[in-house]
Amino acid sequence: MATLVAPVQHSHIEDAKALYKACKGWGTDEKAVISILGHRTAAQRQQIRLAYQNLYQEDLVKRLESELSGAFEKAVYRWILEPADRDAVLANVAIKKACPDYHVIIEIACVHSPEELLAVRRAYQLSYKLSLEEDVAAHTTGDLRKLLVALVSVLRYDGPEINARLAKSEADILEDAIKNKAFNHEEVIRILTTRSKAQLMATFNRYRDDCGTSITKSLLREGDQVNEFAAALRTAIRCINNSNKYYEKIIRNAIKGAGTDEDALTRVIVTRAEKDLKVIKEVYYKRNSVTLEQAVAKDTSGDYNAFLLTLLGKAD
Amino acid sequence: MATLVAPVQHSHIEDAKALYKACKGWGTDEKAVISILGHRTAAQRQQIRLAYQNLYQEDLVKRLESELSGAFEKAVYRWILEPADRDAVLANVAIKKACPDYHVIIEIACVHSPEELLAVRRAYQLSYKLSLEEDVAAHTTGDLRKLLVALVSVLRYDGPEINARLAKSEADILEDAIKNKAFNHEEVIRILTTRSKAQLMATFNRYRDDCGTSITKSLLREGDQVNEFAAALRTAIRCINNSNKYYEKIIRNAIKGAGTDEDALTRVIVTRAEKDLKVIKEVYYKRNSVTLEQAVAKDTSGDYNAFLLTLLGKAD
Repeated sequence: MATLVAPVQHSHIEDAKALYKACKGWGTDEKAVISILGHRTAAQRQQIRLAYQNLYQEDLVKRLESELSGAFEKAVYRWILEPADRDAVLANVAIKKACPDYHVIIEIACVHSPEELLAVRRAYQLSYKLSLEEDVAAHTTGDLRKLLVALVSVLRYDGPEINARLAKSEADILEDAIKNKAFNHEEVIRILTTRSKAQLMATFNRYRDDCGTSITKSLLREGDQVNEFAAALRTAIRCINNSNKYYEKIIRNAIKGAGTDEDALTRVIVTRAEKDLKVIKEVYYKRNSVTLEQAVAKDTSGDYNAFLLTLLGKAD
Repeated sequence: MATLVAPVQHSHIEDAKALYKACKGWGTDEKAVISILGHRTAAQRQQIRLAYQNLYQEDLVKRLESELSGAFEKAVYRWILEPADRDAVLANVAIKKACPDYHVIIEIACVHSPEELLAVRRAYQLSYKLSLEEDVAAHTTGDLRKLLVALVSVLRYDGPEINARLAKSEADILEDAIKNKAFNHEEVIRILTTRSKAQLMATFNRYRDDCGTSITKSLLREGDQVNEFAAALRTAIRCINNSNKYYEKIIRNAIKGAGTDEDALTRVIVTRAEKDLKVIKEVYYKRNSVTLEQAVAKDTSGDYNAFLLTLLGKAD
């Protein structure tokens, strides 16, 4: 379901040499950078980085940072990192903002499998000499802190077993809480932050059967007033329930209107290109009657545009 | 620092055969069980279990359960398991009690290294098809839930780096909270459940320097009324700060007065015999002017007594 097009065989030494050549002297051959890095898997990119370090005693990432600029630079930087390291960077940037972008934290915590999230937490500690939960806790307060810290700390059970009776009783708890606008009820937080994804899906389905509407719609309806916490809950539920639809909407919002939210657009394309971007593209087309490639082509330009389209699987 | 005396070389097949012989027919040769299992490391015990299974198509643990009884059976059962599996059992038993024994949960969460705690969480999921945090959350409420779930979920940063300014500011936060008897203040929970152990030690030392008394003593003084939450906080701090002293007191309380808290005594001896029981013995002797062996010999009897003394390092 990936969109990335990468050769089965490649020479990481030749790749490293070609990148060196692309960066050498005045100006940079951005097309060469895109045609190499835009067609290599995470494992291949790491091999290239190692080969580059051995050949030129220089960190390829640092070199590219000094050669490239703007949204293109940021996209290449995000892309070249190993997935767990990249998510650690995304989480750190999001939490250190003056106004923390907690939706990115929720996305990382809720879309990933339990083991993937654990890998991000390990990468975070290696990079920042602190735990992810520690930084999240130190930069948030109140109910949002309770929710976020629990979401990034949990190692959810990953098995398929479902307890139908529990799904019923916990769907009831969620229904009561939403009816009473007690979104921050500690039972709501407990359920969303500790149950396995399979169990939560069963609970959400049960909620829908009983209430005649999805829990995310209910949250929207009840939380008409701007409610930061209800919005965070919705993001968590949407990421757990159907991450493809969640990502489609992130991209849609990033593109729509004047200007582009390049950070969001880059984040989705870079983090999903090796995973499920093909499915997200299909969901996008269904919802917008225009292909994601067309939308990106129209909304971005230059090397940034070329790089994103490459990751989206466009033939060179 | 372990008290366990185990041979470097042993034949797990011979051991399995000897255990089979000890269990065969009417009656059980408990002395043989003790002289074998009481002198084998965790890795050796697993090899014996495997060899037994292969030789006799029977689980050694199940067989011993049906042969032994009382406190001795429980101690052997706890001992034979791998450390992470054993802790998962201890945690499950503690949380499923009508009156959950949350100090055991705190002990497991706070004495272990971050990676050891993670191993317990994985073992818990394998055994119970649920996450540890999920069960802890479902069996507790209120402030205690907040504290316990965070303690079992955190993957603390394990490095030696300390931020002295942070230690000062967080010691101040703790001091204010204790002064105002706001033990359950969310900042107190945040600090104790997310900071690295090295950072917390620095914070506790700073607290002592500023207040002229240790934080655990302060909690005791301010929490004169029975306060379940303050007691839980104290346990967490004591386990993080000096687990040897913590364990000494658990043993002291288990032994003192009429009767013995066999569960607690067994737990400490079985879980620490391969780790730091030697140090705990020294702390015990310093505090009680009697050796731990003497105290255990006096307070217990029969096979249970012989088994504990073997794990304490007594020569056969």
